[in-house]
Amino acid sequence: MRLVTYRRSIEAEARLGVLVDDLVIDVATLGERAGSPLPSRMLDFIKLGPVAVSELGFLLKEAGGRWPVNGALPLAGVILLAPIPRPDKNVFGIGLNYIDHVAESAAALDTAPDLPKQPVIFSKPPTSVIAPGEPIVHRADITQQLDWEVELAAIIGTTAQRVTRENALSHVFGYTVLIDMSARDCRRAGQWIYSKGQDSYCPMGPCIVTADEIPDPQTLDLWLTVNGVEKQRNNTSHMLFKVDELIADISQGITLEPGDIIATGTPEGVGAGRNPQEWVWPGDVIEAEATGIGKLRHPVVAG
Amino acid sequence: MRLVTYRRSIEAEARLGVLVDDLVIDVATLGERAGSPLPSRMLDFIKLGPVAVSELGFLLKEAGGRWPVNGALPLAGVILLAPIPRPDKNVFGIGLNYIDHVAESAAALDTAPDLPKQPVIFSKPPTSVIAPGEPIVHRADITQQLDWEVELAAIIGTTAQRVTRENALSHVFGYTVLIDMSARDCRRAGQWIYSKGQDSYCPMGPCIVTADEIPDPQTLDLWLTVNGVEKQRNNTSHMLFKVDELIADISQGITLEPGDIIATGTPEGVGAGRNPQEWVWPGDVIEAEATGIGKLRHPVVAG
Repeated sequence: MRLVTYRRSIEAEARLGVLVDDLVIDVATLGERAGSPLPSRMLDFIKLGPVAVSELGFLLKEAGGRWPVNGALPLAGVILLAPIPRPDKNVFGIGLNYIDHVAESAAALDTAPDLPKQPVIFSKPPTSVIAPGEPIVHRADITQQLDWEVELAAIIGTTAQRVTRENALSHVFGYTVLIDMSARDCRRAGQWIYSKGQDSYCPMGPCIVTADEIPDPQTLDLWLTVNGVEKQRNNTSHMLFKVDELIADISQGITLEPGDIIATGTPEGVGAGRNPQEWVWPGDVIEAEATGIGKLRHPVVAG
Repeated sequence: MRLVTYRRSIEAEARLGVLVDDLVIDVATLGERAGSPLPSRMLDFIKLGPVAVSELGFLLKEAGGRWPVNGALPLAGVILLAPIPRPDKNVFGIGLNYIDHVAESAAALDTAPDLPKQPVIFSKPPTSVIAPGEPIVHRADITQQLDWEVELAAIIGTTAQRVTRENALSHVFGYTVLIDMSARDCRRAGQWIYSKGQDSYCPMGPCIVTADEIPDPQTLDLWLTVNGVEKQRNNTSHMLFKVDELIADISQGITLEPGDIIATGTPEGVGAGRNPQEWVWPGDVIEAEATGIGKLRHPVVAG
């Protein structure tokens, strides 16, 4: 199941939709027609848990391709938002979680060459999230080193407090693609939030694929291009700490709640690690994709 | 004006109150009686801006000590929550913002001895916030170095995007006290969020004093005791980056929104900087206070 948050028009409210081929089916409208109420917002749907996912699956099947009039729109005709448009929740990031990225980061930045013994956690503020296609803003007065990082993001479905690795994946609602934009020259006393948390630094989407369709999140290809040139290509099998380990680890100290987002780290190929180093500038276009989830495409513009 | 979020009883909803001597006046009830509706939640009140503050001031004066029956309760009889009980918003922290703390941190921890040239920003997740009096949880399997940091926190009232230092304080709704609990041995690759962001690591309150009553936030005494012994005492005049500079700086890259919280950094006297080093353990009691805002008192318990 591929879930999106969309607007019918620029003035319309943001609503939850499910992708069926090239159609966006409005979830609440589908539920209403069937006499089985479903929420119109992604976060409300996530909070309802697996019962809502299976009920929506049933309704889609039952519909048999006969969609509610005015409740099914061509994907090309709607405006997609970030799946969780302005999270009320935490956006956690994981640093140094692919072995080759640890090496390139140590060579180019201020991090250690040793593999981390525990996940390296940081956060991005909700204000950094933008919708698929929205511009990434380059502020030349703040940064001359704006870099890309493609990542798989896990969306938490049920509260996770001190969970075991064995149970961790049962707390995942689904997965999406996230670009962890990073202004390398905005680190302060080594802290990353200002370098990774500025407005527009968290493109996310285009949809959330529910966890039932990705039983093993460690098998996905991830790639990123700048102006059509491939910069990163890897597979989530190369994560140092797997998704289940990340959830188990974070939840020992920090309770994870429905809608919390964990960006699971980027593989090698970032601009800082290249020789010579490369950064993005106004006019550039970044595309990022993960197997079976979909593609993000974002222009970089001057702020 | 001293605003609190309170519950009438353990089962009751959290509501906005204003302190008048030893009474909690329910803001929505007072507004209802006067035919001037006011919100029942702190964040809704903050979002209404200065008009709501001045209207509430008018209603308090007009009441002349005659309070709505069932809308005024003894402070001792209610349960206080954190003023913004579980922020949907960002909790930003500022590191290394008092000169003597920069020195003690460099001597004891992994930070540089030079004064930061720009504010050092980090964040604490909303899940870390606890109510006045709630226990701070010490998890012996995670930390053996749990430390205290008393701070003045500024609450943003109106959206601040790329504001000047001159205009910055006009975006502040009010101020509160915040204890930035820090597990020194939980820093990971230098990142602070796991050391400062665990559940219960952000006591906050007991009230928000509105900005009209604190025209200059750089004149407040701050102090903290552990088991009655004074560990920190300083004045916000010694901040390296003042509140207006912090808001101007952060807002250059990160839009600040109503309800966002900025913990402005701690002065010297933390446990890590002492010789020998001191940490808190189950059974200890931490108290923290700032001039005119009020006192927090939190027991440390085993988790």
